[in-house]
Amino acid sequence: MPASSNSEIPSILPPLSDQSVVYLPHLGLTTLNTDFKEQFGDVKFVCTGGSSTRMSEYAKFFSAMANVPSGGNLCNRTDRFVMFKTGPVLWANHGIGMPSASILLCELFKLLRLACCADVRFIRLGTCGGVDVKPGTVIISNGVVNAAMEKHKFVQWIQGKEVKRDALLDAQLGDDLFGTATEMHLPVDRGLTFCTDDFYEGQMRLDGPFCDYGEEDKLTFMRQLIKIGVKNIEMESTCFAALTHRAKFSAAICCVVLVNRMEKDTMGLKESVGEFEKRPFKIVSQFIMNKLNSSTS
Amino acid sequence: MPASSNSEIPSILPPLSDQSVVYLPHLGLTTLNTDFKEQFGDVKFVCTGGSSTRMSEYAKFFSAMANVPSGGNLCNRTDRFVMFKTGPVLWANHGIGMPSASILLCELFKLLRLACCADVRFIRLGTCGGVDVKPGTVIISNGVVNAAMEKHKFVQWIQGKEVKRDALLDAQLGDDLFGTATEMHLPVDRGLTFCTDDFYEGQMRLDGPFCDYGEEDKLTFMRQLIKIGVKNIEMESTCFAALTHRAKFSAAICCVVLVNRMEKDTMGLKESVGEFEKRPFKIVSQFIMNKLNSSTS
Repeated sequence: MPASSNSEIPSILPPLSDQSVVYLPHLGLTTLNTDFKEQFGDVKFVCTGGSSTRMSEYAKFFSAMANVPSGGNLCNRTDRFVMFKTGPVLWANHGIGMPSASILLCELFKLLRLACCADVRFIRLGTCGGVDVKPGTVIISNGVVNAAMEKHKFVQWIQGKEVKRDALLDAQLGDDLFGTATEMHLPVDRGLTFCTDDFYEGQMRLDGPFCDYGEEDKLTFMRQLIKIGVKNIEMESTCFAALTHRAKFSAAICCVVLVNRMEKDTMGLKESVGEFEKRPFKIVSQFIMNKLNSSTS
Repeated sequence: MPASSNSEIPSILPPLSDQSVVYLPHLGLTTLNTDFKEQFGDVKFVCTGGSSTRMSEYAKFFSAMANVPSGGNLCNRTDRFVMFKTGPVLWANHGIGMPSASILLCELFKLLRLACCADVRFIRLGTCGGVDVKPGTVIISNGVVNAAMEKHKFVQWIQGKEVKRDALLDAQLGDDLFGTATEMHLPVDRGLTFCTDDFYEGQMRLDGPFCDYGEEDKLTFMRQLIKIGVKNIEMESTCFAALTHRAKFSAAICCVVLVNRMEKDTMGLKESVGEFEKRPFKIVSQFIMNKLNSSTS
């Protein structure tokens, strides 16, 4: 079972431990400086991505598109992350990699619980390498594969011991995003997403400072990935799927391919990235607009 | 052997693969837009830390202290990292966690090779949790412990297979930094650094959104850490030690304790952090000034 169905997911978090003052230190927020219910009680969508600039731009675009105000960065007491709110949609960046993303997600879960939010959907909008997929194509993940090539599992270490968690996305939410992209005539596909802790050797790039393998080894590995259904590679998906699943939030991952890894490893700095990077936003914002319009009509 | 001696480390990197144009995509630099030898050929120290604001401030302080100019952010074509140069010292932030830090380090290694730099020392200046260590104390790591509680090992996954790398710091550089701190009458200690991929459960905090253990489990784990010689906990050290060691750079880690984990988990947002966060900088900048003065006298 690659993903759980939306209807099975009650959006209730386990209770926070008994604390008189709650701190979200990496968001710069606490119950001392923020009225969470007042400020975040209407949140229905949380959109995350790696880059702070990109998430800030997405918030601005959505504000114009939905004709809702967008205030400034809500995490302005810290430089770890940025967060913007446009009506019922939060936009936050999680930095690079799972450890960074896990901090953002954990503190967002605390935020949503403090705000008593229900039925919130999480969507990661990112960039990725494609595995035999053309640059510009958007991949809506239908599951995740960890660095040990295990499907739908996220590995944590607690008290010196390995703990494996189910890493499951919401199949229905993924199908809905795929449908929206198709209607918009954007190049889109579904497939598994391979997630690594390492951009160079972990993804078998040939242009890093360390490289003990050759081009044939790289291509053999890419063919192994294709064989098990992998379409793209990035660095946050297993953690994102596992944490949102454990917190009982519906979640999807929507990433645009910047380079086809069967052909090359690194792209130039400006090769059409700007246009490609807008595609996950176009799909996700249209999907959200459709949902908001159907709930108010 | 917890660390290798400085004198054994030849500062020569393995050759980059044969590329006509070299890209450092997360630094926004390429051989097309940068003369690496001209711009970076004199670098002798690379100082890294998690926060972009902190590294930017450190660069400004050092510029004033050493009376050398500090230009703007050298990574201004991207928002992934920031980097400043003050004479022979580079200051760059690596974000949170090992995946993010590994990208910065890999691209810095490529940069230093393109610039033909030799005898460069890497120092990480960070913040950490203390294990039975008072807030404000600076810990100069004499080794690293990974999440599986193994000493001096960093785990990578390449081609779906686990690869263990030696994660070794330069004992002499650590001793020199410890000596500098002692001369400055700053609270300082040496010990092992425990490194996790997870801020909440991986470090057994009780105030995260998920918590399947209790306070006694947490304290039992902290006592296990103390028993093997751990003084502090952070999220980048095993990767930092392993990558610098593999690239044959002398390296040290110098982190200030923000909270004693035997007593609590999260600190308030403003509790003396500003003053504490300057301590690793005070030690490292004084050490660098001493080195620069002795080499020109």
